[in-house]
Amino acid sequence: MSAELDGLQAAIEDALLHFLPQRSPIAQALLEAMRYAALGGGKRFRPLLTCAACTAFGGRAEDALPPACAVEFIHAYSLVHDDLPAMDDAALRRGAPSCHAAHGEALAILAGDALQTLAFSTLAASAAPAETRLAAVGVLAEASGWRGMAGGQCFDLASVGRALSLPDLHALHGAKTGALIAASVRLGALFANAGEEPQALAGAFGSRVGLAFQIMDDVLDVVGDSATLGKSTKSDEQAGKCTFATVMGVDAARAKAESVMGEAQELLRQAGLQHSLLARLGGRAVNRSH
Amino acid sequence: MSAELDGLQAAIEDALLHFLPQRSPIAQALLEAMRYAALGGGKRFRPLLTCAACTAFGGRAEDALPPACAVEFIHAYSLVHDDLPAMDDAALRRGAPSCHAAHGEALAILAGDALQTLAFSTLAASAAPAETRLAAVGVLAEASGWRGMAGGQCFDLASVGRALSLPDLHALHGAKTGALIAASVRLGALFANAGEEPQALAGAFGSRVGLAFQIMDDVLDVVGDSATLGKSTKSDEQAGKCTFATVMGVDAARAKAESVMGEAQELLRQAGLQHSLLARLGGRAVNRSH
Repeated sequence: MSAELDGLQAAIEDALLHFLPQRSPIAQALLEAMRYAALGGGKRFRPLLTCAACTAFGGRAEDALPPACAVEFIHAYSLVHDDLPAMDDAALRRGAPSCHAAHGEALAILAGDALQTLAFSTLAASAAPAETRLAAVGVLAEASGWRGMAGGQCFDLASVGRALSLPDLHALHGAKTGALIAASVRLGALFANAGEEPQALAGAFGSRVGLAFQIMDDVLDVVGDSATLGKSTKSDEQAGKCTFATVMGVDAARAKAESVMGEAQELLRQAGLQHSLLARLGGRAVNRSH
Repeated sequence: MSAELDGLQAAIEDALLHFLPQRSPIAQALLEAMRYAALGGGKRFRPLLTCAACTAFGGRAEDALPPACAVEFIHAYSLVHDDLPAMDDAALRRGAPSCHAAHGEALAILAGDALQTLAFSTLAASAAPAETRLAAVGVLAEASGWRGMAGGQCFDLASVGRALSLPDLHALHGAKTGALIAASVRLGALFANAGEEPQALAGAFGSRVGLAFQIMDDVLDVVGDSATLGKSTKSDEQAGKCTFATVMGVDAARAKAESVMGEAQELLRQAGLQHSLLARLGGRAVNRSH
């Protein structure tokens, strides 16, 4: 899998570079902050899912690069804004100063804003049929707006220091993390010209992968190594956050992640896609050290 | 003109209410902050321009309500983020506490983010042909992203305390204010199914209206009444900002606004639209006390 994934990852890095603006006569500092936020490493898990889903559903990975980059721009913007002093107040991201620590708070706010806009313009300008691109704008907006990622972040901020039930945690992370990961997979199917049913299957697979990913995030925050993670561990506990690991315990949380991933893989098996790159990539949500 | 404009304004308020989400099981506080930011009064200048442009170019005003609201959501998000402590640090907006003053900084950041997303989902979900909606996403993203509004705000922040030339001021405000106002008019023409040439004319009219609007903003900051404006006057001077009024002087700036508006009206006259609501509405950019 490694060579195929490495090739895809390189194509995604090239595409991100291609879609990120390089020169502005009036706002070069904004572009630097945008590029810092979007090019600062990261696993590229979401865009890889988009490209892998596209090939799984019969398309070509390169046709999915615009939605893959759009998803990554949304993800990058959310990290920049979540790290702000008024939000999670995180000085480190991926082992380096967070965007506001490096570029100042005003530019970080603007860079996040402009990365969100860039996500939509990247979708709108791609080569797919108009109906496909338009549906993609709807899928991405739904996943990242008040019902999805932004709503989940609001819930998360309001939950600090409060006890959450398991259903609350599911609702929180289904919105905050799950919706965008589900959209990443669905967009791949959409750009493969898959019908409504395979798209729904892709979304269902993606939302389980997203849930498993989040549970493992919580587990790694407790048991992980801060150097490998590139951020502080035990940060959830220190921030007074209720997580799958704190509510269920680490072992039960890990078992839950594996069982959710099993459900996800079963969905792909029913579609005959159990040996696809998408299936193997999904497994990474659980089998990872960072 | 008043009855026609009042009717249009009422239709826009209804549409904003319609498109703004009302209930969320996980993030009601986010919705309250979004509604506070988008429904807190305001002249609705941009959405009025969109609807008036749609009728001027042969469409129906109601068909332009989705792009009109999308433009207003972008405008509202930009005000929320511009008012943040790390940006212009404004406690007042339209005579009331700014969004972060009323809802806290974290919610204000998120509300701005989610309003931007809502702008794109509102465009994507409208009833126009897919090609029209997709073109609209492109126009709105271009006007509000790194090349437009966000870039202009970056330039503005970097210019505080620095002397700017007139060409610099044109570039700054062409991006910060002009691009979105030009897009407002262009989107109206687009949703009237106007061709490329009338759309370009609409955009050219809009960018002149935007420039005249900004120059008058600078003039009113010097000579206006803070109660009528709903915000502090002399704020530009106190913030060390170079404006058309400080660079040219108030009288020359006012004359410049009128001459730019003359150019704008001449464009409409050439298209036989000098008696349209759009023409009269454009005139408001100059003839106003707030």
